[in-house]
Amino acid sequence: MKKIGFIGLGVMGRSMAQNLRNAGYPLFVYNRTKEKAEPLLKAGAEWCSTPAETAAKSDIVITMVGYPHDVEEVYFGENGLLGAAKEGTILIDMTTSTPTLAKKIDEAAKAKQVKALDAPVSGGDIGAQKGNLTIMVGGDESVFEEVKPVFSVLGENIVLQGGPGSGQHTKMCNQIAIASNMIGVTESVVYAKKAGLDPEKVLKSISAGAAGSWSMSNLVPRMLAGDYSPGFFIKHFIKDMKIALDEAEKMGLNLPGLALSKKLYEELAAKGEENSGTQALIKYWSK
Amino acid sequence: MKKIGFIGLGVMGRSMAQNLRNAGYPLFVYNRTKEKAEPLLKAGAEWCSTPAETAAKSDIVITMVGYPHDVEEVYFGENGLLGAAKEGTILIDMTTSTPTLAKKIDEAAKAKQVKALDAPVSGGDIGAQKGNLTIMVGGDESVFEEVKPVFSVLGENIVLQGGPGSGQHTKMCNQIAIASNMIGVTESVVYAKKAGLDPEKVLKSISAGAAGSWSMSNLVPRMLAGDYSPGFFIKHFIKDMKIALDEAEKMGLNLPGLALSKKLYEELAAKGEENSGTQALIKYWSK
Repeated sequence: MKKIGFIGLGVMGRSMAQNLRNAGYPLFVYNRTKEKAEPLLKAGAEWCSTPAETAAKSDIVITMVGYPHDVEEVYFGENGLLGAAKEGTILIDMTTSTPTLAKKIDEAAKAKQVKALDAPVSGGDIGAQKGNLTIMVGGDESVFEEVKPVFSVLGENIVLQGGPGSGQHTKMCNQIAIASNMIGVTESVVYAKKAGLDPEKVLKSISAGAAGSWSMSNLVPRMLAGDYSPGFFIKHFIKDMKIALDEAEKMGLNLPGLALSKKLYEELAAKGEENSGTQALIKYWSK
Repeated sequence: MKKIGFIGLGVMGRSMAQNLRNAGYPLFVYNRTKEKAEPLLKAGAEWCSTPAETAAKSDIVITMVGYPHDVEEVYFGENGLLGAAKEGTILIDMTTSTPTLAKKIDEAAKAKQVKALDAPVSGGDIGAQKGNLTIMVGGDESVFEEVKPVFSVLGENIVLQGGPGSGQHTKMCNQIAIASNMIGVTESVVYAKKAGLDPEKVLKSISAGAAGSWSMSNLVPRMLAGDYSPGFFIKHFIKDMKIALDEAEKMGLNLPGLALSKKLYEELAAKGEENSGTQALIKYWSK
């Protein structure tokens, strides 16, 4: 079996790595904080002290880190992946990062006969645990086919969207749709409360029709219960919206709904809500 | 069986009236343009030459007209319903109209021992034809129970939301959620196209997850096919958004997403798109 390197053992990464280990893959792991690797090391994974060491020992390296600057560091930094990956190694960035950086990694990789894919996911920590993530892939088809068995361990809805950067662009489409819809469902709840309606009863009337959405069915009940624990962190959502707005600007595209959503969430984050879940948007109206 | 008056035989009203006739109710109809009543008259409905005459002949009168000023005219105008309804008559406005007007009708009705409900619907022309509309009701519970058999002919998801005006408020919650989501799904498609992605492939990745919604599944395919025919007219959507914004303002509530959506749709309407379906929002980016 292919030897897999895994870098980034946060909430998502640790479950994904565990699923790969459970599927029998020899696993080489690196993380900034070593303690997070302990359960995997106990399960037989081997510790690597740098991204470079991980690349040297693996056929495929998956990265699942935090922000684009972390991706940049892991791929291009001192002891980074690109300086150490052997010819033919496949580097897969599953972090939600910028399409521009994905293309830059692909170019740098190709210059060294290394292969790269961008493959961000949706489905959250639950999807990572259950191995049913949606995986949006950008890169060459032959590389995609080569790693499909690995993706199949991690996810269910796996689509090659196009060339390098296309996976990241697709994830941006996902976040863009969510961004304005979060405003819509939240304004709907706020209006319902202010009008003296019972928001749960309102949901009975509207959630199965043309106003219905995943966010309405899954996040509004949490808003109503006052449960602001993060399924998806506001700080990460802001990161994604920034990426999407930057990319849109580069393409000369005006996205007023996305800009509004970023503005509302940034105001909330500035008030200390950055570690709340995105459903805490309702607090914008209680200020 | 109760005698039912039906006022307003547009795309929605004519199907609803036909379903009531098919269910065996004696039907008395009035419409500004008499020709639209012909199929119903052939099916045994009786023509009335004014709302007042309709009220005088009926136990229950349903109104399904265009704009709040039409509702105002039908209820309070010369030869209007309220001047002619007998004690105990039930007047049901199923037009999407203002909560404020619904309360005004209820008060005027009560002063004459007449009963009133506001009961706007969602589900569109297809729901009206199939008799599976969602009906959002405001008014007294005893009146609601009295007319439930009639509602059951017209719809399936029938919820008493609260006192007078609550049905209209609930419909506003529905439109508010749709308003921002339309921006979200449209910006997502526009971004996908600009980034060189295949939007249909993007839908495969994102429509079943956290970005998913009725609008994404049902209206985006029409956008992509260039089909702008109205499931729901832009001009009617603007009417609804105006009502919601007015009511929100009365309640001291700021709804920036709704305001943005109204602005975008008004710009489109000003360019001649008022009779297109709401999915024509994508044309905002092709200007």
